Amino acid sequence: MSSTPTTFSFGMIGLGTMGRNLLLNLADHDVAGAGYDKDASKLTLLAEEGAGKPVRGFAALADFVRSLHTPRAIMMLVPAGKIVDGVIEELRPLLAPGDILIDGGNSHFTDTNRRAAALAAAGFHFFGMGISGGEEGARLGPSMMPGGDQQAYQVVQPMFEAIAARVDGEPCVTYIGPGAAGHFVKMVHNGIEYGLMQLIAETYEVLKRGLGLDNAAIGQVFSQWNNGRLQSFLLDITKDIFAFRAPNTDHSLLDDIKDEARSKGTGKWTSQVAMELELPVPTIDTAVAMRDLSKYKALREQLATLYGPAPAPLAVDQAAFLSSLEQAFYFSMVITYAQGMQLLAKASQDYSYGLRLAEIAKIWRGGCIIRSRFLNDIFNAFEQNPALEHLLLDERVRGLVSQAVPGARTVVAAAVAAGLALPAYAASLSYFDTFRSARLPSNLIQAQRDYFGAHTYELIGHEGVFHTQWTPLHEDATHKQSTHEGPENTQKQEVIPNQ
Amino acid sequence: MSSTPTTFSFGMIGLGTMGRNLLLNLADHDVAGAGYDKDASKLTLLAEEGAGKPVRGFAALADFVRSLHTPRAIMMLVPAGKIVDGVIEELRPLLAPGDILIDGGNSHFTDTNRRAAALAAAGFHFFGMGISGGEEGARLGPSMMPGGDQQAYQVVQPMFEAIAARVDGEPCVTYIGPGAAGHFVKMVHNGIEYGLMQLIAETYEVLKRGLGLDNAAIGQVFSQWNNGRLQSFLLDITKDIFAFRAPNTDHSLLDDIKDEARSKGTGKWTSQVAMELELPVPTIDTAVAMRDLSKYKALREQLATLYGPAPAPLAVDQAAFLSSLEQAFYFSMVITYAQGMQLLAKASQDYSYGLRLAEIAKIWRGGCIIRSRFLNDIFNAFEQNPALEHLLLDERVRGLVSQAVPGARTVVAAAVAAGLALPAYAASLSYFDTFRSARLPSNLIQAQRDYFGAHTYELIGHEGVFHTQWTPLHEDATHKQSTHEGPENTQKQEVIPNQ
Repeated sequence: MSSTPTTFSFGMIGLGTMGRNLLLNLADHDVAGAGYDKDASKLTLLAEEGAGKPVRGFAALADFVRSLHTPRAIMMLVPAGKIVDGVIEELRPLLAPGDILIDGGNSHFTDTNRRAAALAAAGFHFFGMGISGGEEGARLGPSMMPGGDQQAYQVVQPMFEAIAARVDGEPCVTYIGPGAAGHFVKMVHNGIEYGLMQLIAETYEVLKRGLGLDNAAIGQVFSQWNNGRLQSFLLDITKDIFAFRAPNTDHSLLDDIKDEARSKGTGKWTSQVAMELELPVPTIDTAVAMRDLSKYKALREQLATLYGPAPAPLAVDQAAFLSSLEQAFYFSMVITYAQGMQLLAKASQDYSYGLRLAEIAKIWRGGCIIRSRFLNDIFNAFEQNPALEHLLLDERVRGLVSQAVPGARTVVAAAVAAGLALPAYAASLSYFDTFRSARLPSNLIQAQRDYFGAHTYELIGHEGVFHTQWTPLHEDATHKQSTHEGPENTQKQEVIPNQ
Repeated sequence: MSSTPTTFSFGMIGLGTMGRNLLLNLADHDVAGAGYDKDASKLTLLAEEGAGKPVRGFAALADFVRSLHTPRAIMMLVPAGKIVDGVIEELRPLLAPGDILIDGGNSHFTDTNRRAAALAAAGFHFFGMGISGGEEGARLGPSMMPGGDQQAYQVVQPMFEAIAARVDGEPCVTYIGPGAAGHFVKMVHNGIEYGLMQLIAETYEVLKRGLGLDNAAIGQVFSQWNNGRLQSFLLDITKDIFAFRAPNTDHSLLDDIKDEARSKGTGKWTSQVAMELELPVPTIDTAVAMRDLSKYKALREQLATLYGPAPAPLAVDQAAFLSSLEQAFYFSMVITYAQGMQLLAKASQDYSYGLRLAEIAKIWRGGCIIRSRFLNDIFNAFEQNPALEHLLLDERVRGLVSQAVPGARTVVAAAVAAGLALPAYAASLSYFDTFRSARLPSNLIQAQRDYFGAHTYELIGHEGVFHTQWTPLHEDATHKQSTHEGPENTQKQEVIPNQ
């Protein structure tokens, strides 16, 4: 048992489960840590859990700051938003130039940009770092995504590499890129997480309502999947959940849990930012929308009575359908990751993050919530071609996806016919079928926009933008059509008027 | 021919197609209008188009302002964003207290809130007004959605009522609500427009690729639909588009138009705001994502070669399938409007807009891009029950939708099996099947969130939030399960730690 030091190498503000566990993890790697929280009960928990370890909690912020070696390295792990700004305001007068402040929470990347600029101007080092792995990851080895002030990161790099999850001996942490790149990448990680969780929930729906399996059998399916190519943290915990009984009963605790999904915003942000970047991530959008929809419980119950009956079990051969379902899940999982990776590539361009997608896939292979066997394939794809525009272009992924498509079609078509709701599965397949369309019907949208709003359109094989007077508002359009009067029919115009 | 007056009752800043046409429309209703634009060519166009009418263009902003009766009524119709702020800055020193400034463009409603506060503080009246109808609507009768400063609106109300589209003798303009309510409602109007346009594009895809129809036959289908219960402005212009030949050719101009859809942001905003309000609008989300996806033309062409072949024509009875398709379109159209209306209801609550949904449906029946026969049903539903939580709860709508669901299932299932991309149709059906689920699999999402992040869950029939230690991280969870040791297994906790 080591004695508690009086000065500490690392400070943690916010001693919730994540903050405490990271401090304990650091302590296990010989980094003496100080903690601060306004909530006395958190200090008690830290004292209990950290007994015999080089950690100490402080009830006063000034004492906490004084207890740290300079230049100080302080991480905030507090709820995103105004609380982060409040902590920074309180902390700033106590810091010295050269001190390093780290936001380890799920801050919106635009907030991180703003804070980095303000703190740099004041002479402090600041960087945002996404941390994934939940409470167990924090305690035993998370995946970490630091971005921003690289010099500052290098000061603390050895500590983070020591506590990170490891895969093949390598730590699941790497410098992500400038600015808010770390928080951006963590946000997209969470967006992928939303997609995968929705897909697992829909799989549960198919197994339960579509095939009529009980929880034990459903848990068995997830367990089997988790032993194969679908192996992932999320399937792993899902099988545990199906095995977990409610206290003093013979049924799963899961059955007693309300079917209204909550969220803390990172999935929503991913979809909102993807729309801003005009990069389609419809599986993630659907996951966000379906969490929101789930909360309208009373309305759902009313609509169920109006638009019943509930779907009957699928009239399918169970073994064959389970095989299709495994393919469908694999397919949709790949699509979800592919959407996330393309969003990272797009953000890297637009925000000059210089993201190394292979490195990101690599550090996601351990410690984080979306870790899975398939991340090896993603890593290999981007390792082989760092400029790969879309995961579906990778030759190995092409083989895997092509093999899984028929199962996806079987499952979605059966569910659609039966009235079973599989929104994320359906969105993944729609996305795939749209993206593999060399020619889309979007020319009609352009024609409509030009018709009602003079928004102009482009022509195949011609430079420039064109506008057509489609109606006889000012002239006789019918006349135009029948006489083929020539190119003045589509007049070029550079100025796009308002709609 | 009236002589041009020297002072004017209404001023227009921004003489693009919309601005010019609104001035001409006002002039036709005896409102003398002054126009201002930095672009001399726009002044020339106004002079040409307005010859003999009481309109006049000014090249200098000060002259323009001086030409207006006080209190002045000035509308800006300029591109949304910084240009609006720039115009306001230039204009402010020239205005007198009591003057009325109207933003008639597609400004983001949060910008409108900010501007209204700043201008009110300076003693000016300001309100935002959504205008729909495109160039033809502006000229012959638009649908208008004024919100904000009601006193100011009442001053100009007679002019707007004079120029608005009319349905059953009533003008398609009504005061929408306080703050940015007018721009908000116009934004949602446009979100619905995105959804409907995507559905029409997908219908074109089914008719062309799925049934192998040529443009003449496709135009015929849209034309027939437009004569029945599906009658709408968008179908009306679609049939025209299919009839419009490229100059000096025998083929449709449509075939020459690039299949990359552009957008000006209002659909995106609708989805982003809906996510902020946690209100699901997945058909609109899908429409936004698919416009974005369409722009990745080169990538689509690559993926088409890797994941071919293109879908074969559907092996269906054409007449029966066309009947299903009409049902599917009707169904998806209802769903799209329903999502938009629920978003309005939610925003009305959250932003205290006090929206009268029946009135909104009423003014959308004429002049605007989403006008359609079905808006009468929407109007009736909310007229009968102003507090109707969801359009699908209306008894008449229930009958219409229930009748159309089988067709939607037939079409989406066939397309999914064949590899034909119908993302918005599929999203509409998924939304419906999810919303009519009294019990969803979202309990699993809550269990997962509690497992990895201690985010807690709620229990059916119990107050409060609960957390379970699902793994043997701190204790022996297996032991817990087998001994059924009681309620401490699910300990209540009020504080939700970070993930």
